[in-house]
Amino acid sequence: MPFFHSARWWAAAALTTSSLIAGEGKWTPQQVLQLDPLMLRKQGLELPVSRLWDPRRGAGLLAATVNIGGCSGGFVSSTGLILTNHHCLFGVVQEHSRPDRDLITAGFVARTREEELPGKTTRVTVPRKFTDVTAEINAAAPAGAGDLDRSKAVDAKQKSLVAACEASAGARCRVAAFDGGLQYVLIESLELSDVRLVYAPPRAVGEFGGEVDNWMWPRHTGDFAMARAYKDGKPYTPGFYFPIARTGVKPGDFVMVLGYPGRTVRSLTAAEMAAQRDFYYTLREQLYGEWIRALEDSTKDNPAAAITVAATLKSLSNVYKNAQGQLAGLARGRIIEKQQAHEESVKTWASPRPEFAKALLAKQDLDARAAARRKTATRDFLLQAVANGPLALKHATQLVRLAAEREKADADRETDYMDREIPRLRARMERDQKSLFQPADQAMFAAWIARALKLAEGERIEAVDRVFGSGDSLKTLAYLYQSTKVTSLAERLKMFDESLAQLRARRDPLLGFAFLLEPELRSFQAAEKTHDGAVARLRPEWRRAVIAHTGKPVAPDANGTLRVSFAQVKGYAPRDGVIYTPQTTLAGMLEKHTGVEPFDLPQAVVDAARTIDAAKVPLNFLADADTTGGNSGSPTVNGRGELVGLNFDRVWENVANDFGYNPAVARNISVDIRFLLWLLKDVEKADNLLRELQPAGK
Amino acid sequence: MPFFHSARWWAAAALTTSSLIAGEGKWTPQQVLQLDPLMLRKQGLELPVSRLWDPRRGAGLLAATVNIGGCSGGFVSSTGLILTNHHCLFGVVQEHSRPDRDLITAGFVARTREEELPGKTTRVTVPRKFTDVTAEINAAAPAGAGDLDRSKAVDAKQKSLVAACEASAGARCRVAAFDGGLQYVLIESLELSDVRLVYAPPRAVGEFGGEVDNWMWPRHTGDFAMARAYKDGKPYTPGFYFPIARTGVKPGDFVMVLGYPGRTVRSLTAAEMAAQRDFYYTLREQLYGEWIRALEDSTKDNPAAAITVAATLKSLSNVYKNAQGQLAGLARGRIIEKQQAHEESVKTWASPRPEFAKALLAKQDLDARAAARRKTATRDFLLQAVANGPLALKHATQLVRLAAEREKADADRETDYMDREIPRLRARMERDQKSLFQPADQAMFAAWIARALKLAEGERIEAVDRVFGSGDSLKTLAYLYQSTKVTSLAERLKMFDESLAQLRARRDPLLGFAFLLEPELRSFQAAEKTHDGAVARLRPEWRRAVIAHTGKPVAPDANGTLRVSFAQVKGYAPRDGVIYTPQTTLAGMLEKHTGVEPFDLPQAVVDAARTIDAAKVPLNFLADADTTGGNSGSPTVNGRGELVGLNFDRVWENVANDFGYNPAVARNISVDIRFLLWLLKDVEKADNLLRELQPAGK
Repeated sequence: MPFFHSARWWAAAALTTSSLIAGEGKWTPQQVLQLDPLMLRKQGLELPVSRLWDPRRGAGLLAATVNIGGCSGGFVSSTGLILTNHHCLFGVVQEHSRPDRDLITAGFVARTREEELPGKTTRVTVPRKFTDVTAEINAAAPAGAGDLDRSKAVDAKQKSLVAACEASAGARCRVAAFDGGLQYVLIESLELSDVRLVYAPPRAVGEFGGEVDNWMWPRHTGDFAMARAYKDGKPYTPGFYFPIARTGVKPGDFVMVLGYPGRTVRSLTAAEMAAQRDFYYTLREQLYGEWIRALEDSTKDNPAAAITVAATLKSLSNVYKNAQGQLAGLARGRIIEKQQAHEESVKTWASPRPEFAKALLAKQDLDARAAARRKTATRDFLLQAVANGPLALKHATQLVRLAAEREKADADRETDYMDREIPRLRARMERDQKSLFQPADQAMFAAWIARALKLAEGERIEAVDRVFGSGDSLKTLAYLYQSTKVTSLAERLKMFDESLAQLRARRDPLLGFAFLLEPELRSFQAAEKTHDGAVARLRPEWRRAVIAHTGKPVAPDANGTLRVSFAQVKGYAPRDGVIYTPQTTLAGMLEKHTGVEPFDLPQAVVDAARTIDAAKVPLNFLADADTTGGNSGSPTVNGRGELVGLNFDRVWENVANDFGYNPAVARNISVDIRFLLWLLKDVEKADNLLRELQPAGK
Repeated sequence: MPFFHSARWWAAAALTTSSLIAGEGKWTPQQVLQLDPLMLRKQGLELPVSRLWDPRRGAGLLAATVNIGGCSGGFVSSTGLILTNHHCLFGVVQEHSRPDRDLITAGFVARTREEELPGKTTRVTVPRKFTDVTAEINAAAPAGAGDLDRSKAVDAKQKSLVAACEASAGARCRVAAFDGGLQYVLIESLELSDVRLVYAPPRAVGEFGGEVDNWMWPRHTGDFAMARAYKDGKPYTPGFYFPIARTGVKPGDFVMVLGYPGRTVRSLTAAEMAAQRDFYYTLREQLYGEWIRALEDSTKDNPAAAITVAATLKSLSNVYKNAQGQLAGLARGRIIEKQQAHEESVKTWASPRPEFAKALLAKQDLDARAAARRKTATRDFLLQAVANGPLALKHATQLVRLAAEREKADADRETDYMDREIPRLRARMERDQKSLFQPADQAMFAAWIARALKLAEGERIEAVDRVFGSGDSLKTLAYLYQSTKVTSLAERLKMFDESLAQLRARRDPLLGFAFLLEPELRSFQAAEKTHDGAVARLRPEWRRAVIAHTGKPVAPDANGTLRVSFAQVKGYAPRDGVIYTPQTTLAGMLEKHTGVEPFDLPQAVVDAARTIDAAKVPLNFLADADTTGGNSGSPTVNGRGELVGLNFDRVWENVANDFGYNPAVARNISVDIRFLLWLLKDVEKADNLLRELQPAGK
């Protein structure tokens, strides 16, 4: 029974644990150099740490790890080829799909450079330099300044640092705060804006399992795609690229996941976490659930409309399921309770130490603020949601804000409306039109209004009350959609360049609502900024105590900056009586293939798979890497720095690891590079790409 | 991490396989004595084989294995205490439940003998003697007789053997055919008809997981109950009873499952199996699905009615899910394809051997008959379903049949209507009243009629056409239910004693339909009998070749007679990426407990579980024993003959093992005796029962 034998071997290996391996921690490049090299070697790192990151030269594995439109990716050839997730390049695939050339369904292979498809808004940034600017930032805040002033001063200083940094050609810079402001780092990257789609599998492969399997294990998804970065019209030559591993991973193997994790909140106090649970995620689950139903109901029996809203629906579903997972995981892992217990031990430890007196006060202050913010948390959530919801509402408010900001000097503007951002904003407004199906958008807007009309006294939104508070709100909304020009792409692009006065003169009723809402949005955002200022002052104090109490390096919360996680390939026990082994195969994909979406493989894949022993083609694998959103497309590499897979998801039990790492269930999911190679060879016959993907040591 | 450590240990042990252990085979007591004792010893049997079954004395472990109302059970004390499944004694619990004393929900503990609750129709049979009567049966069939005559002659001979056997007091006898008639065995048992309920857990424990978890793993169901057998008003003293094992099972352990498996069909030819798949299981899934919906819809928002139909609904759901599992398992295990391949190899082997020429012809004949029977298979299914469907229809046809049969001499009657069966039939008709909710019954009847009206030409049911074929069939049916007295218990019991003439004189319209249907039922049953006669002639021929080709003992298909299966505690891999470990614990039950049915534990259980380390109380376990329906309540014992659990289910992937044993997924589920002991001690405080359950070696 070779099958059973193999399952046994997997299970045993799946559960090999080594106390040497600690999956927890999204380490910064600087921190990697501070970690104990011997410990990393014992875990399985066969390279000198300097090969991960050489700060003087801005070189190493991390330098080949790029940010691609909010996702991660890695260079895999000397001619700028980048591997990332299918879902990270889905926008480009969608951009080039037409009814008569449905690249979404068929997938895409560029057989020559000429066939590659440019992505209008896709940008790649390549890391170059990290500079600690904490002292400069802190010096910028005037002594004794109020929180809003402090926040503004820090903001202004950051902008000036960024502006100076971006003076050099092609540079894209940002100042990132770590540990809520304990450290500030100026990050310089090279931005490449000519990015072209090279390969995308058919959606049925790239999204195999769809929403059913999303966040789930066992998984069988070919979530990869390729793009090429160009510079000055020529393929970009990266300083380093990841060779493809000649031998794949097996259970127990050491792996590293490199990438740009977006945001975690482990440094929040338990009280702050509880507020996130009780409002942010609870309301997200509710409102996004309503939005999903709105999209589904309004596109039923309308395939064209369903295609239009597909990307929006996918993104909403992802956020929705994530919210559910966060809530379930917080309860399951008792994460908030554990954080509270940890805080207690820090407090006990810090109390007799006078140098942490301020830390304890800061903690008290943070908790008091969390309590106070609960009063308007429901309204605040709705105001925040304006930027993620119905396009008409988002565009109208952005147009009004843009016109207002443009009347200021560039340096005085909100970051998102500075000159450097305006082309990006315009491109997004243009691309959004592809996703706009008016009845769906209107139904989403209606759900938002219904919630706003139900707000408690003391947190009403005046603009909503004035426009929709009397009469039939649905009729009012229908009138707005009928009359507005914001939903017309041509008109919207005209509006994009208009002044406040010009916009007002249009007497467009939707713009009218946006004008009414604008002061409330501003005042909410100002309150947020004040709060941020306070938190930027308080959290570092408290974190200093927490880190001192820990007595060893602590990886800061994810903040969209480059990180590496050290991990091991292993399975887990999701519940009593069940063990998940850490690797799946093409045979499992065939098992799931029913011919019914989302388990409906292209016939070519089924045919090719049936000619071989599909159980020998590895498909997805688990490791205990510490990842989050933004790590999509992260190169997963072995101890020699060779690419073995691409991270694309976490398991359901691990969604709440944004709040805390639970080693029992902290598992990320990678697609195995061997599946990509099989697909390119046996199904796509993409010899040009296979030649370019050089296996290590060849 | 003790949890993880323990999971690892389980997984490793879960997958320990030993080529010595062969789970396949439901061995008869006689066969056990023919198996290689050394091989059994190597598997883990620590007792001499004669301790399993001593044919001279009618003693041994198998003698303590009783048949209790179609289920299996085992004596566990010297004073007649029997352990079986909760679902096997559910009827008795229901019988004694009243709105003001809801034993179903609360469970029941008899603290003294006086409190024990008699089960009206519950009977226990204790095996005493097995006698090979093949020669006598075969001699009874006149040479050259037709199939119907042959069938009748065999029937008559069986009856006379049974009658002679039952002449001794308390004896209950039957003649069982093995391998479709290759062997006939006269089985003598002691029947005990005074059986009293001693213990039933709350339904929320005994059915924990309900229909959601039924046939599923991982499982957490306390599916056990206790009864006591009385003889002459005193607790019965069994010749042997199972001591309770002092140490429980662990993965890899040898276990035996003893009991009365009902029916398997592994000796069918592939063509016969395909017919079962295409008609019997496919139609079952359809009709039973409709019946389930009928019950659910007609009792919605009517809790009292829902209680009335609960047992029926449960039984229908079980059969329905079973049908689904059979269909899925046949496809998954490619069982029919494998049977066909096996047949080919038998044919190739037998062809050059003249002694098997008849076997090959018999095989051809069986397949030809299977093909011919497809023509009326849909009608035949509906006629068969009369006995399992709406009570009004079942009762009406039974009353008409009973009156007709009673006009014959006892020996000439159909077995089910012989004098010895009549008290049982009457008791069932009485007990059925508890399950009769007229609107539900009528809706089930309507579904049956709708299917009958859709039959193809050539297989119409004339009675249905005449009564329901014109006009509004639903109205006709409503009229029948309004007018009939069959649904009244008092009237029905009167009818039970009436002659054909008396029944006719009633002019009861439902009886009228039954009178119309009677000749069609008779003619269908006669055709079945003819077919059975042919098969009883043909199958032994073919099986002789199959067994000779195998060259070693082959366990015959289950036929409701006493069997033992030798097995090992082990998990399995249900699909790519997943391993099921073979043991679950009380901790997993708490994990599943949501407070919502069917995962709604009594508070007392939750409270008691929370005061201990629930992961240390084993709950259910898997083994690769070869079981089927009828094995419910089977004692699962270790190599020393000590009781470690009670079999109560198979896993979903293993439902189709009725057609063929697939070692990769053939797993039965037992409830661990340690959970029962914990429940009796910590929750029920049933010291009297704990004292009676003597641990081994005490």
